[in-house]
Amino acid sequence: MPTSENGSPPVYREIAEELRGQIRSGRYADGDRLPGENTLMEHHGVARATARQALSVLINEGLAVAVRGSGIYVRQFRPLRRHGARRLSKDLWGNGRAIWQTDSDTRGYEVEGLVVDEVVPAEHVLRSLGLDPGNPAVRRSRRYLVEGRPVQSAVSYLSPLLWAGREDSPAAQRIRAPDSGPGGIYARLAELGHAPAHFTEEIRVRMPTPEEAEELALSPGTPVLEVARTALTSDHRPVEFNEITMDGSAYVLQYDFDA
Amino acid sequence: MPTSENGSPPVYREIAEELRGQIRSGRYADGDRLPGENTLMEHHGVARATARQALSVLINEGLAVAVRGSGIYVRQFRPLRRHGARRLSKDLWGNGRAIWQTDSDTRGYEVEGLVVDEVVPAEHVLRSLGLDPGNPAVRRSRRYLVEGRPVQSAVSYLSPLLWAGREDSPAAQRIRAPDSGPGGIYARLAELGHAPAHFTEEIRVRMPTPEEAEELALSPGTPVLEVARTALTSDHRPVEFNEITMDGSAYVLQYDFDA
Repeated sequence: MPTSENGSPPVYREIAEELRGQIRSGRYADGDRLPGENTLMEHHGVARATARQALSVLINEGLAVAVRGSGIYVRQFRPLRRHGARRLSKDLWGNGRAIWQTDSDTRGYEVEGLVVDEVVPAEHVLRSLGLDPGNPAVRRSRRYLVEGRPVQSAVSYLSPLLWAGREDSPAAQRIRAPDSGPGGIYARLAELGHAPAHFTEEIRVRMPTPEEAEELALSPGTPVLEVARTALTSDHRPVEFNEITMDGSAYVLQYDFDA
Repeated sequence: MPTSENGSPPVYREIAEELRGQIRSGRYADGDRLPGENTLMEHHGVARATARQALSVLINEGLAVAVRGSGIYVRQFRPLRRHGARRLSKDLWGNGRAIWQTDSDTRGYEVEGLVVDEVVPAEHVLRSLGLDPGNPAVRRSRRYLVEGRPVQSAVSYLSPLLWAGREDSPAAQRIRAPDSGPGGIYARLAELGHAPAHFTEEIRVRMPTPEEAEELALSPGTPVLEVARTALTSDHRPVEFNEITMDGSAYVLQYDFDA
């Protein structure tokens, strides 16, 4: 931590630390308005620049959000709990439920802008699907909203080799249609003889690109979670690869496992 | 994305996008030096402020790191792969190996600054351990380094009730000593009749506090991963709670599970 000349932390850091403590203790609850520059100036006897710097620290840490023309507020969106294993249980998609309906939250997801097309995917996608370079894949892209707020975008890839010779089967047609039918893609894969039995999820975290910040309407100081999921059959053939980009402030990811 | 007057993205964004593509494609590899302000000014015919802004975008996204007096470099530390379930398998700690020795990486971890003390933990810690407010817990804090670089700090909590009446047993003494012995804390818990059988990990992501940025030597634009792990016995009693704070740029977390 930078220190001022006398060796103690600079005043703006001390003010930020005090406000941080008050947010953590619940003195300022989610969605509450924090003291403004004028209040901090008066209360701490500091210049406007110092007060502003203190508030910037909290914004950059993602604890607070600036609302233009109104003030600085404690971040208010309660995180969604995403339960890694339970939500992908065969009991759910095998019985016609969509995966995103199983996230343990009473708030409903809304799916937006689902687009299905065919592309030659990037090398790491082909590798995850066990496909040679240059192979095409069906790509399904969409965005999920909760309470009108975009919380994640997801792009999944499936190889047309999975339904080769059966292009006109209802399951193969549904995979290439915006509405994949009851139980979604995994139920369709099961109908084609490729039921997912194992999943691998890889989690990375980073700051968003400008495009992602725009798509997910992220405030400054908000990292994204990247979840890369591969679905495998019981004989460990990869059948789907899904790249999910989440608003890092909107999620708690939970994984349960045995020793 | 902000646009300039004619509706196209501002020039600094276009330059950043070009550099980003060159990093992603491997044209600039991990640890490579990126073109400096002078080179960008000449190559794109822009002002110094524009060149600097373009490089700032990559630094804020965590793709590049500024080295004072030298230049801007592509982030070079190869992420550590942390395998959620495999690393906590009883086969490993049951046979005297430390958990952190099982992370699938040839680079060795170094444990630094292990401190053991007794505290009254925060409310969420007590709740996770199933303890009433005001109860004490043994706290074990340490930092892990890889190649001399701090990559995570971890603070675990255990209730003294687990060894009540057996304070002088070797297992109870080891839990309160810096060196917890072969197989670590989980092996000692097993000796006391509290072998962990289930684990829950909760993952959150956020920007670091100034103290965390200092402790983990984080560059600007680097979020932290928070992993909160609860170890439970076969009858689902919580016996340990561990709060791990990771350099988000240093890790890929992997979880495997069945449908």
